[in-house]
Amino acid sequence: MNAFRGELRQIGVIRSPYREQKDAPSQGRHARDESTLEVFKEYESALRDIEQCSHLIILYWQDKANRTTLQTRTPWGPEIHGVFATRSPNRPNPIGLCVVELLERNGPLLKVRGMDALDCSPLIDIKPYSPQIDSVHDARIGWHKKRDLKPE
Amino acid sequence: MNAFRGELRQIGVIRSPYREQKDAPSQGRHARDESTLEVFKEYESALRDIEQCSHLIILYWQDKANRTTLQTRTPWGPEIHGVFATRSPNRPNPIGLCVVELLERNGPLLKVRGMDALDCSPLIDIKPYSPQIDSVHDARIGWHKKRDLKPE
Repeated sequence: MNAFRGELRQIGVIRSPYREQKDAPSQGRHARDESTLEVFKEYESALRDIEQCSHLIILYWQDKANRTTLQTRTPWGPEIHGVFATRSPNRPNPIGLCVVELLERNGPLLKVRGMDALDCSPLIDIKPYSPQIDSVHDARIGWHKKRDLKPE
Repeated sequence: MNAFRGELRQIGVIRSPYREQKDAPSQGRHARDESTLEVFKEYESALRDIEQCSHLIILYWQDKANRTTLQTRTPWGPEIHGVFATRSPNRPNPIGLCVVELLERNGPLLKVRGMDALDCSPLIDIKPYSPQIDSVHDARIGWHKKRDLKPE
């Protein structure tokens, strides 16, 4: 078990309008702001056909996060939850996950809508969003006060 | 940029019925098999309230993957795509992502349905699935032959 070496490689950088945590939405999904994913030259060929995807799953590194936090409050109430039951950036592996709309590709630059990452966050992975495997419209989070909100 | 140190910590291990790649479904989402996520004792408190979540997003490490692959074929056809336009495990950061149904929690053990991870894969992160931010029923992947399949 101690043999595990999960060393991430930065594949690019996120250019976003959010300089500090207080500027960023707690979830990017419904924000109208645009961000640009700048994929490093050495990984550009891995983008082939990406423009055929309407939506992407973006994994990025939340380098301001506290990795020792195991329980936390959320913006939705005073209760304490385990971080694995929340989307808090503070968690043992602070990998941010956003589902974004791909607006435009220009070579290694992807203009997207729906990111909540801070400007200059390291980009880790890009995956095509597939409704067949990624969309579960009736999932529930019991503690979440807004669980009855309709998805868009 | 070179200052980036994204070192992952293993938070647990996945017990699955798939010993080798040939045994595993290419996507776990619609498989009926059950897997067990075994969260290490030191991270167990981060699971508080997890049993209130019907579905989870699981991030795990695909330790058999080839990290130098930038373009690949898929099970859906002979065409070559960039790995960022596919869900291939072979990619610069081989983080697997599965949306699973949480069937049962027993302390640090989570019984789930929908994983495609091989047995003994390192567990990296657990997030609650929120339909408000994670479900996009009309997303499209142009190259995907089965794009007209209806989601469940």
